[in-house]
Amino acid sequence: MRVGLDVGGTKTEAVALDDAGGVVARVRRPTTLGPDGVIASILAAVDEVAARSGGRATSVGIGMPGQIVPGSGVVSHAVNLGVRSLDVAAILGATLGVPVDVENDVKAAALGAAVLRVSAPSPAPGGVEPGLAYLNLGTGVAAGLVTGGAVWRGARGAAGEIGHLSVDPAGPRCRCGQRGCIEALAGGRAIAERWGRPAALPVAEVFDAAEAGGVDGADRALAGALRDDLVRGVAAAVRVLVLTADVDVVVLGGGLTALGDRLVAPVRAALRRSGETSPFLRSLHLDERIELLPAGSPAAALGAALLGAERGEEVLSVG
Amino acid sequence: MRVGLDVGGTKTEAVALDDAGGVVARVRRPTTLGPDGVIASILAAVDEVAARSGGRATSVGIGMPGQIVPGSGVVSHAVNLGVRSLDVAAILGATLGVPVDVENDVKAAALGAAVLRVSAPSPAPGGVEPGLAYLNLGTGVAAGLVTGGAVWRGARGAAGEIGHLSVDPAGPRCRCGQRGCIEALAGGRAIAERWGRPAALPVAEVFDAAEAGGVDGADRALAGALRDDLVRGVAAAVRVLVLTADVDVVVLGGGLTALGDRLVAPVRAALRRSGETSPFLRSLHLDERIELLPAGSPAAALGAALLGAERGEEVLSVG
Repeated sequence: MRVGLDVGGTKTEAVALDDAGGVVARVRRPTTLGPDGVIASILAAVDEVAARSGGRATSVGIGMPGQIVPGSGVVSHAVNLGVRSLDVAAILGATLGVPVDVENDVKAAALGAAVLRVSAPSPAPGGVEPGLAYLNLGTGVAAGLVTGGAVWRGARGAAGEIGHLSVDPAGPRCRCGQRGCIEALAGGRAIAERWGRPAALPVAEVFDAAEAGGVDGADRALAGALRDDLVRGVAAAVRVLVLTADVDVVVLGGGLTALGDRLVAPVRAALRRSGETSPFLRSLHLDERIELLPAGSPAAALGAALLGAERGEEVLSVG
Repeated sequence: MRVGLDVGGTKTEAVALDDAGGVVARVRRPTTLGPDGVIASILAAVDEVAARSGGRATSVGIGMPGQIVPGSGVVSHAVNLGVRSLDVAAILGATLGVPVDVENDVKAAALGAAVLRVSAPSPAPGGVEPGLAYLNLGTGVAAGLVTGGAVWRGARGAAGEIGHLSVDPAGPRCRCGQRGCIEALAGGRAIAERWGRPAALPVAEVFDAAEAGGVDGADRALAGALRDDLVRGVAAAVRVLVLTADVDVVVLGGGLTALGDRLVAPVRAALRRSGETSPFLRSLHLDERIELLPAGSPAAALGAALLGAERGEEVLSVG
């Protein structure tokens, strides 16, 4: 029984899969931060999901924020988890006695999104994806690429880190020091900082303020500008992913996609507008290539569970 | 004996390879335009390179401008060749009686650049490339990606078409209708049009004018602005290729690279500057990842010759 985990800064999600790849158990627990806390959180989640499924883990895959050197199980710079560097695979492998794979959470979610898409009533011919990108719109912006059923990691595991591509030299200053990065336009943290008002859901508040008549003129203008930046940032990310890797579909996920069609409809419109003047862009049908990850899908945990399979333990028909 | 061709708007280059992949003959002929002219030019070049090598072609690969639907031998929109749509593989296969592969010339050059790099005294550990991009700086701007020894084509063969990504909404208008496309900044045609003076080598003239004291102030200012745009366009292309696909190296080729270090040094400096403020970009060592294709390398013809091998006819150690 494969177990997969998505270890986030507030919660850890775990799924257990049967031999056919179906989710037979799913649990969510709070994450304890720091190296020891993260390891303890993972072990507790593995125990709980195994108990709930009535089976025993034969492999464990873990998706977590931070950098993972390709081919290693070492996570580094996982700031949100309070982890500087941790050999997660070695520690857990020794404790659990089963193969342990570790992957960046966005890349794991990309693999999960590819599997979910094939399992769903097929929108693609034969259900096979020649290439899929998962674009995570959360605190930051990053993407994961999947082709031939496997994660594309690149030379140093940086593939998909498009958040720090600048698409406007006169755009807002990014935390990275550049101006007009995709993340400075479309990242949840950047939008909240530019909005500058305390809010539980700042991006939703920005959309409300941009659309509502009840706020004063200045607030409304700022909200409108922030919303426009978010939309053009996401549209730019989609163009980058398709024109560079020519993925067949870009699946949008992450916290900001709770906005649903309020976000997706203007992004589609922006992509259609660039096609109006450019026959080349129009021929790519960019607006038709974006999809929302179904709300509540455990994409990262599911993808993490399949990391070993992707490595060649068994064959999966995920395109 | 494998034969590979690079069919351009003015000349057709052909190479013949021995069993070890070494170039044993190389010819250049003028290209005749139009569908019949292109086919005749190819047949003449195949005959001539075979005669010069003393062997007989067992496969023919063709790199040419235009779009090739993945898995087909049909080229379309090859404007520079006067070809709207032509089933090159079917026509030539019937005439020559050997397997014929057809690929976009930039993608073929990417494969050739990967092979040339492995054949050269190895700058990479073990000579193996986890991923390479070839960035063609000619009339237009486009890239080809190679990973695992094969061309990455994408869902519709559009992978690498980064020339029409906008990196500046206030930048110069592109032929495609957008503003600030990489090609509008760094394409030879766009630079020549903005320079607006008749010149045999307009981009070299722009660099001369930007650097010389002998031209008037307005010309010099325009030349400086065009040179700066070229440099930032190329730097943006390198960032897009590395942050999306995390290729290990970006090989620069095409007519504009005749500028050599006059182009490469400021591009490296621009990439270093973005790393000064951004630890993330600095960690990618972008300035160290660019290389020039050796002048006069028949990269596209060589890559074209190996298309069949890449497809699985034999194993090549090209990473």
